[in-house]
Amino acid sequence: MPSSSAPGKVYLFGEHAVVYGEPAVPCAIDRRITVSCTKSNDNLISIQAPQIGTNDFSIEFSESSLKSNLSKVEPHLHYILTAIGLSLNFSETTFNGLEIVVESDIPLGAGLGSSAAVSVATVDAVSRTCDVIHPLEQIATLAHEVEQTVQGRASRADTFCSTMGGFVCVEGKKCNKLPFSQLPLTIGYDGGFGSTKELVSMVRTNKENYEFIESIITSIGRISKLGMVALENQNLATIGDLMNINHGLLSSLGVSSNSLDEMVWAARNSGAFGAKLTGAGGSGCIVALDPDMSSIPSLLSTDSCKSAFSVDISEKGLIRK
Amino acid sequence: MPSSSAPGKVYLFGEHAVVYGEPAVPCAIDRRITVSCTKSNDNLISIQAPQIGTNDFSIEFSESSLKSNLSKVEPHLHYILTAIGLSLNFSETTFNGLEIVVESDIPLGAGLGSSAAVSVATVDAVSRTCDVIHPLEQIATLAHEVEQTVQGRASRADTFCSTMGGFVCVEGKKCNKLPFSQLPLTIGYDGGFGSTKELVSMVRTNKENYEFIESIITSIGRISKLGMVALENQNLATIGDLMNINHGLLSSLGVSSNSLDEMVWAARNSGAFGAKLTGAGGSGCIVALDPDMSSIPSLLSTDSCKSAFSVDISEKGLIRK
Repeated sequence: MPSSSAPGKVYLFGEHAVVYGEPAVPCAIDRRITVSCTKSNDNLISIQAPQIGTNDFSIEFSESSLKSNLSKVEPHLHYILTAIGLSLNFSETTFNGLEIVVESDIPLGAGLGSSAAVSVATVDAVSRTCDVIHPLEQIATLAHEVEQTVQGRASRADTFCSTMGGFVCVEGKKCNKLPFSQLPLTIGYDGGFGSTKELVSMVRTNKENYEFIESIITSIGRISKLGMVALENQNLATIGDLMNINHGLLSSLGVSSNSLDEMVWAARNSGAFGAKLTGAGGSGCIVALDPDMSSIPSLLSTDSCKSAFSVDISEKGLIRK
Repeated sequence: MPSSSAPGKVYLFGEHAVVYGEPAVPCAIDRRITVSCTKSNDNLISIQAPQIGTNDFSIEFSESSLKSNLSKVEPHLHYILTAIGLSLNFSETTFNGLEIVVESDIPLGAGLGSSAAVSVATVDAVSRTCDVIHPLEQIATLAHEVEQTVQGRASRADTFCSTMGGFVCVEGKKCNKLPFSQLPLTIGYDGGFGSTKELVSMVRTNKENYEFIESIITSIGRISKLGMVALENQNLATIGDLMNINHGLLSSLGVSSNSLDEMVWAARNSGAFGAKLTGAGGSGCIVALDPDMSSIPSLLSTDSCKSAFSVDISEKGLIRK
């Protein structure tokens, strides 16, 4: 039974600006979504995904059934069904059922790349079940297509990072893996989630209303460029500074929240070099550059923080078993 | 006995950026510092200023004594002594003592313009005690000189606004009164204060380190321009949006704090059109655009907020009695 796992990610720099072609620097973390897939003969697509709230979901095994059910399911199932439909297009084998099990230790919609990870892992696991082995670049492209279908607009950053692992730079259509390995990161999670689609759309509306938002987005791109130099030099003070500035600019775009700001301050005030929200925002996670992990008790002492943990960078992206 | 009072202010838009020549829009509020001054014959300058922590302060009445004591006194007394020294330069009358009483209902160093108000009121009261009546423009200029002496660098905005009252636009050396009258504002105060000098200096260092800070400052200036259009149209939704964006950009400059952010969110989440820190930041006050004052209980329910109150715009600046 093919099993594919793909890591979550945090954005060190550049979320939202990346949607407009600015460079961004996400990195994969050692939290994963694993999708296992097997053929069946019951004319059904059955999905068990307890951590994303889906037990014993099943629909008829047909293209029309996949399409007609898309609008009725919760967001993460939307990614899974879209990824299944897309992957089956490449299949030349004949079979009439799929059993899929999804396991996740990534909080959903919280800025840690759960949608990219589930898209990457599902595309790969379903493809391999159909005896199709896509090269990694193709997996990233197909998973990006899944995100675009579900979200309307998505950057290539998340799915590329989840497929390739480690640090990546994404700028427009160019995606490159960066030669850095570790960075001491702590995550704070407020227990909530933001809608990437709605937040991306809100920034677009702001950008249409106020022409100077363009230069804020350009400044975020500039932070990503300087951030890559600081990463190369392992200059933690500058990386932290740039994360703090990036967080302020994200706030000015309207995508922070009371709980995200409270966690960012808890991390900074306990000695982190810098802290920012990660991902689309609205609610979810912050990431702090925090070598001695002193921010964990500080984060947990706030009203906002529901869990806090350190993460390692995952050098590996997609893992096939 | 001449008595001069000058109002505090809030910044609707543009603090910090104004230091670099960008436009800013402060407005005077109905909280004042009153300075009363009378001649005496005891060869002393005596100052009573209970709300700024100065009871029965006195030094020898001489230029050298004024200068040598400057570095030893707490910040607001520094403004007062500097204003006295500057005002005495214009005096042609002979006398050998001054008794000064300062009364204030503006929190100190909290972003409500206490230093500008005390500078304006002291320059005017001492000058009039010396039988010198400066035109308002000259009072604003002299009070600005006081702020520059004490802070190292200061914009003309605060002292011009405190002298003239109402809404003003300050851009470089150009200061204009704006034809707007009221706006429903609420203030939240965390009980702390920030050092304008240190915060202005920190932004300058950031600007020297990261060239893109320049474009953040330009964006704040752009917000001030759009803010004036929105004020003219009494478009509260847009004014609030721009305040929110302005706060995010101030955060990216590093001048917000945990308590300021918490108060800003309390105001926004209780229905304010927008909220931002006002003044140099670090600690102190936020200002919210809040027609129904619903943010007051919400502010007071936070750990950060020590007092919250609505303010009227003060159409009058310097008042002479």
